[in-house]
Amino acid sequence: MTDLLWPGDHRAGLIFSDAAYLAAMLRVESAWLDVLVESGIAPQPARADLTALVSAADVEAVAVAAEATGNPVPGLLELLRTRTGGEPARWLHRGLTSQDVVDTALMLCLQQTLDRIRDEISAQVSTLAALVETYRNSPMLARTLTQPALPTTIGLRFAHWLAGLLDGADCVATLPQLSVQAGGAAGTMAAATELAGSPDEAINLSGRLAAALGLADGPPWHTTRSVITRAGDALVTCCDAWSHIANDVAASSRAEIGELAEGRGGGSSTMPHKNNPVLSMLIRRAGLLAPPLAAGLHAASAGSIDERSDGGWHAEWATLRTLSRYAVTAAAQTTDLLTGLVVDTDRAAANLAAAGDLLGEQRAMTELTGHTARGDYTGAAGHLIDAVLQRAKHHLMEAT
Amino acid sequence: MTDLLWPGDHRAGLIFSDAAYLAAMLRVESAWLDVLVESGIAPQPARADLTALVSAADVEAVAVAAEATGNPVPGLLELLRTRTGGEPARWLHRGLTSQDVVDTALMLCLQQTLDRIRDEISAQVSTLAALVETYRNSPMLARTLTQPALPTTIGLRFAHWLAGLLDGADCVATLPQLSVQAGGAAGTMAAATELAGSPDEAINLSGRLAAALGLADGPPWHTTRSVITRAGDALVTCCDAWSHIANDVAASSRAEIGELAEGRGGGSSTMPHKNNPVLSMLIRRAGLLAPPLAAGLHAASAGSIDERSDGGWHAEWATLRTLSRYAVTAAAQTTDLLTGLVVDTDRAAANLAAAGDLLGEQRAMTELTGHTARGDYTGAAGHLIDAVLQRAKHHLMEAT
Amino acid sequence: MTDLLWPGDHRAGLIFSDAAYLAAMLRVESAWLDVLVESGIAPQPARADLTALVSAADVEAVAVAAEATGNPVPGLLELLRTRTGGEPARWLHRGLTSQDVVDTALMLCLQQTLDRIRDEISAQVSTLAALVETYRNSPMLARTLTQPALPTTIGLRFAHWLAGLLDGADCVATLPQLSVQAGGAAGTMAAATELAGSPDEAINLSGRLAAALGLADGPPWHTTRSVITRAGDALVTCCDAWSHIANDVAASSRAEIGELAEGRGGGSSTMPHKNNPVLSMLIRRAGLLAPPLAAGLHAASAGSIDERSDGGWHAEWATLRTLSRYAVTAAAQTTDLLTGLVVDTDRAAANLAAAGDLLGEQRAMTELTGHTARGDYTGAAGHLIDAVLQRAKHHLMEAT
Amino acid sequence: MTDLLWPGDHRAGLIFSDAAYLAAMLRVESAWLDVLVESGIAPQPARADLTALVSAADVEAVAVAAEATGNPVPGLLELLRTRTGGEPARWLHRGLTSQDVVDTALMLCLQQTLDRIRDEISAQVSTLAALVETYRNSPMLARTLTQPALPTTIGLRFAHWLAGLLDGADCVATLPQLSVQAGGAAGTMAAATELAGSPDEAINLSGRLAAALGLADGPPWHTTRSVITRAGDALVTCCDAWSHIANDVAASSRAEIGELAEGRGGGSSTMPHKNNPVLSMLIRRAGLLAPPLAAGLHAASAGSIDERSDGGWHAEWATLRTLSRYAVTAAAQTTDLLTGLVVDTDRAAANLAAAGDLLGEQRAMTELTGHTARGDYTGAAGHLIDAVLQRAKHHLMEAT
Repeated sequence: MTDLLWPGDHRAGLIFSDAAYLAAMLRVESAWLDVLVESGIAPQPARADLTALVSAADVEAVAVAAEATGNPVPGLLELLRTRTGGEPARWLHRGLTSQDVVDTALMLCLQQTLDRIRDEISAQVSTLAALVETYRNSPMLARTLTQPALPTTIGLRFAHWLAGLLDGADCVATLPQLSVQAGGAAGTMAAATELAGSPDEAINLSGRLAAALGLADGPPWHTTRSVITRAGDALVTCCDAWSHIANDVAASSRAEIGELAEGRGGGSSTMPHKNNPVLSMLIRRAGLLAPPLAAGLHAASAGSIDERSDGGWHAEWATLRTLSRYAVTAAAQTTDLLTGLVVDTDRAAANLAAAGDLLGEQRAMTELTGHTARGDYTGAAGHLIDAVLQRAKHHLMEAT
Repeated sequence: MTDLLWPGDHRAGLIFSDAAYLAAMLRVESAWLDVLVESGIAPQPARADLTALVSAADVEAVAVAAEATGNPVPGLLELLRTRTGGEPARWLHRGLTSQDVVDTALMLCLQQTLDRIRDEISAQVSTLAALVETYRNSPMLARTLTQPALPTTIGLRFAHWLAGLLDGADCVATLPQLSVQAGGAAGTMAAATELAGSPDEAINLSGRLAAALGLADGPPWHTTRSVITRAGDALVTCCDAWSHIANDVAASSRAEIGELAEGRGGGSSTMPHKNNPVLSMLIRRAGLLAPPLAAGLHAASAGSIDERSDGGWHAEWATLRTLSRYAVTAAAQTTDLLTGLVVDTDRAAANLAAAGDLLGEQRAMTELTGHTARGDYTGAAGHLIDAVLQRAKHHLMEAT
Repeated sequence: MTDLLWPGDHRAGLIFSDAAYLAAMLRVESAWLDVLVESGIAPQPARADLTALVSAADVEAVAVAAEATGNPVPGLLELLRTRTGGEPARWLHRGLTSQDVVDTALMLCLQQTLDRIRDEISAQVSTLAALVETYRNSPMLARTLTQPALPTTIGLRFAHWLAGLLDGADCVATLPQLSVQAGGAAGTMAAATELAGSPDEAINLSGRLAAALGLADGPPWHTTRSVITRAGDALVTCCDAWSHIANDVAASSRAEIGELAEGRGGGSSTMPHKNNPVLSMLIRRAGLLAPPLAAGLHAASAGSIDERSDGGWHAEWATLRTLSRYAVTAAAQTTDLLTGLVVDTDRAAANLAAAGDLLGEQRAMTELTGHTARGDYTGAAGHLIDAVLQRAKHHLMEAT
Repeated sequence: MTDLLWPGDHRAGLIFSDAAYLAAMLRVESAWLDVLVESGIAPQPARADLTALVSAADVEAVAVAAEATGNPVPGLLELLRTRTGGEPARWLHRGLTSQDVVDTALMLCLQQTLDRIRDEISAQVSTLAALVETYRNSPMLARTLTQPALPTTIGLRFAHWLAGLLDGADCVATLPQLSVQAGGAAGTMAAATELAGSPDEAINLSGRLAAALGLADGPPWHTTRSVITRAGDALVTCCDAWSHIANDVAASSRAEIGELAEGRGGGSSTMPHKNNPVLSMLIRRAGLLAPPLAAGLHAASAGSIDERSDGGWHAEWATLRTLSRYAVTAAAQTTDLLTGLVVDTDRAAANLAAAGDLLGEQRAMTELTGHTARGDYTGAAGHLIDAVLQRAKHHLMEAT
């Protein structure tokens, strides 16, 4: 999958693509049919390998048909019933409602997104922790409100980036588990209860479905959408952290500053001398757009009403996909950015030297205390670096 | 083009699709090459029909290549130069920069979007004006803050919808003209001036390009992005108006109210009795998401810096496309919604009657004035309807 | 504190008011001065009760002065130094930077916000759990996409509201601890290290400050802003849950439905018969605005750069305050809404009966299974209710 | 009015302050009472100078009372009726509804906002046009994607800023006129018709009210909210333009670049050498937050329903105020920024020289054409400057 208007989109591969989403819906219907058969509700002949019946070639037809009912499930079912016939057609989807399939398929795609994000962040943490160590003592000019402030080290700046990544990872890690949904038409599990013979048995079916799909078990969540919004918020938090890094790289790679550069900068269609921080630009783009997209998910959630929402539900799907693909693309680009990052310690030292006398504050301190000044005035930078590296080490141990 | 996660997306056809955008970029490069030849700058053998050289089949390669430079133009140029060779390859794109091509192609796609929106609104205005006339005197319960307020007429409610559509149309109509951009690498027209021999001649080239593409002529607008944001704001304003209609249809089609219904409601995957206001749901979806998308365009614009932005520019393209397709889809759905709208005047009258005594205010008025009460207490509803119908008539005359 | 344009704002009391924020900054400066004295860095005469020196009457002067430096701390310090003089004036703020004070004061106000939110949600959970029990078996029409779907119970609808509240509470509970910040001008703790004699001692000062203020200890987080955005996201998640409740109350209190009503509805300036669901309206308002405000916090965070941000930092303060006050107001209004909620079980049963034959799905199920139909077709509603009540019970035990 | 958390807020003076809004509501009620008397509907003794009856001291009571009905009008009326008594109390507000007063008062405050914005922009245009002239030929390095691109002039960069300001002004100028609203409880003018004796007479009253308040006349717009959203969009468009300027100033004032500086930079609470671009920071802040605020207005508008909205309406008031004050503050700060702007042409020239060989593109052009290269390769910069200055001149003539 590619997107001509979102350079780098191919890095997200098939995540949340139409084909992947169709396959996810098929997985849900297929697993449910298996559950019905395995629990003795549907007869053996109802078993069918649905996944072979529909392919990416059917996406367009299912998509066009989706408008009539407002979601893609009924069209998909019609296709499946026509193609399989017999007992599978008779038992397919029984006990479920469209929302169960749409939402559970979203969870499957979201899980893939979060897995990828976790992997990218671990790679980033590993790379960046090494950079922090390497440049631990390299002097750099700290800037506040764009202006020269005090001496610091390149390692400490990188340690702040690292803290942001770890915060993002923590945000993903504390998400509630993604759970299956099998509530039936009104979220009461009425049809499943009728089929299974009792509420306990109906709840059992939901548990089996969860196990088959690798999702958590849980009660239906039709109009309680925090699982969607919290995932969205976690993705934005990660985009914030990547954007912070990209902002620093972009500013620091200005010719007049020259402290950082992308390893493989981008050229121009007309100017041979150009070496643009392209990855930084593209990552910053996600930082600009992820916040409003996540706000869109919240707007949808805040509009929840009745036993299924009147538009809010429909607003989530494409928004979650877009946000997921933007986040995965930015994640992969940040991994590359960090891997290829070029650091010019000489320029950093020179810029620090050129900033002139920054030690007025230090002199004020020694005047107060009567002590001799500590040489480089970088304070506890080393200790602060150690604290973040410790967090990184802990993260990497947990992640493996 | 379809989108499985945005039911109804096929209504937007190819607008802003990858293939359409690739074709738009080709139109720009092709028209510029023609301009160079026609103005005598490039030799006759440089003329080439570029549009035949690249097709939708190339989208993926161009999209993947776009990441290296951050935009799709250099990859497209490489393809074109390889396929055409000779003088066309030598003269192609000379005097332009990537941003000129990306932005001018956006304008071409945006123009198509706005044309479609204008057409849909005109159709809506025409349909809705007839509905206003038909239900001009049909009594209905006015509700404020969800509760019974006073008598009104169905016609006046529809007239408010109509006023919203006309406001949306006005917002589109007062947009600045979409203009070509041919500023060259730094927006100075330096290369074009060098090629053409003088600034006046360079500006002339831009004018010729505009004429060839059916866009307005104008100076380069590299980091002045209001043309994008204002178009986005106009699209949101239209989505607001459509969403307002959809909100009323959705609420009024509740079984307990039953005053309005969609002509062709949607069914359910399990419940045979369902008649869902599907178009309303899908239109409301756009009303939830258009605002944050337009906010994304403003965030990009507010981040403008230097002579070409460092990420803000890149954030616009896909956002403008998504907003455009959402708006066009919602427009077409609203046209259908209005065309098929079913009005139950009996239920409206019955609900009004069931609301009990609403005329306390009227009695207070007659007590004050000593006059006899006017019968139905719908005040100037007829006059207000006439005023909106007058606007509608004027709009339809202008539109043709 | 009141806000004429945000009815109900007085419910948030002084949280994040200018006076409260000024007091919070004073607490920070005061605690730090104490720490300097207690750790033997500053002499005993430097100790001073700063909180008595500045009052709400100084807000305007400090606010106006804040523009010159971009934040209120230097103006506050000038006031304090003038009023205290001598050793306190000499030692005040030494080792800190403006950002330390601004950010730590934000944490103090945020902590108050979160405490209040936690209390309100616990009250809501308690009230709503009782309502769930009371209406556990009361029949109600489940509606999906606004249309009659299947039978459900009022208890199950309330259980979904309850699940939303518990999700909101969980979101607040999993927030990272709010920590103090004492990084000094560049976040290196350079000045504090100079004063304290070693990095370890400097870090110690930060720990003492945290203890004095009741905040967590932690390294400086100057440009790593997830503590702000995550709190914002949690507040939005709560607003979503409250808005969901308000949506249902507003729709259900329409005269034609009449299943729910606010205990103390609002009147009209002209219509004596009105009983508006005013709390629902005001809560929904927060549901509309909290998402873009939280997006504003993320936009600020994503713009982080250097060792102190160039505008993003400044954008957070008022936004966090507005979001906090909106959330607290909506929280208190929801508590009242739930406490006063009027349920009309007769209307609910009548609407269900009037919806006609909803049992086509049930008949399809019994046809499939050959079993006799279960009477009310509410499936596992009771079990699902029990599951949520269990969560509620657990929450209330944790909360006390 | 000041806001401790929004440094510079005092620049917006009383615009949209609680006191100003209370006064605006009073003006509306007062003017309407006059209209009733002058048109012979109410008796002469009903005339009263309401404005003297209520003052800023009443804000808190009216604000607290506003929650009961969801808006501040009923509480204000109660106060007025108590204080005036007699005929004025009997006739006050007759024919109006709360929404008429709330919305018309919003228009009065909005008009003040837009007037101020227009004045500030005219001042900015005037100042900036002079700067464009002054630095018309001063060489500067054009940067794209943060990297050295080609030579340009400081004048051309300023001309782009100027184009942004003129676009913002155009956006404000093309807003629909702000009109009065006097629709009564359901927007039908029923009460006014009853009082005045006929629809024509009722509409006449609305016209007289408009004239008295200096607003445009027009039909009620209860649930057609584009007048609010379009004003919001125009304010954002202006904030975008100011933020663009602030971005350039902030980046260009980095020590390593040093081409631009604020005339009166801000100091630090600890570092004596600091000269921060404070106005730029504060302006950028508005650029970050104006987009989500305007999105909030659109979300409210898109939620319009019935004859008065169920929360969307209530969401607008404070949002429009916040957006207005942010915009006015940023406007005033930008005026100051431009007035005090310090330009270092030597540094600009030195940075250009240091960027090395930028003329590869130019050589490619001359190779193509066989012509001699034009010296400075700034192309049509002078012509482009002239075009913008021409727009500026036209704007200033119109504005006076």
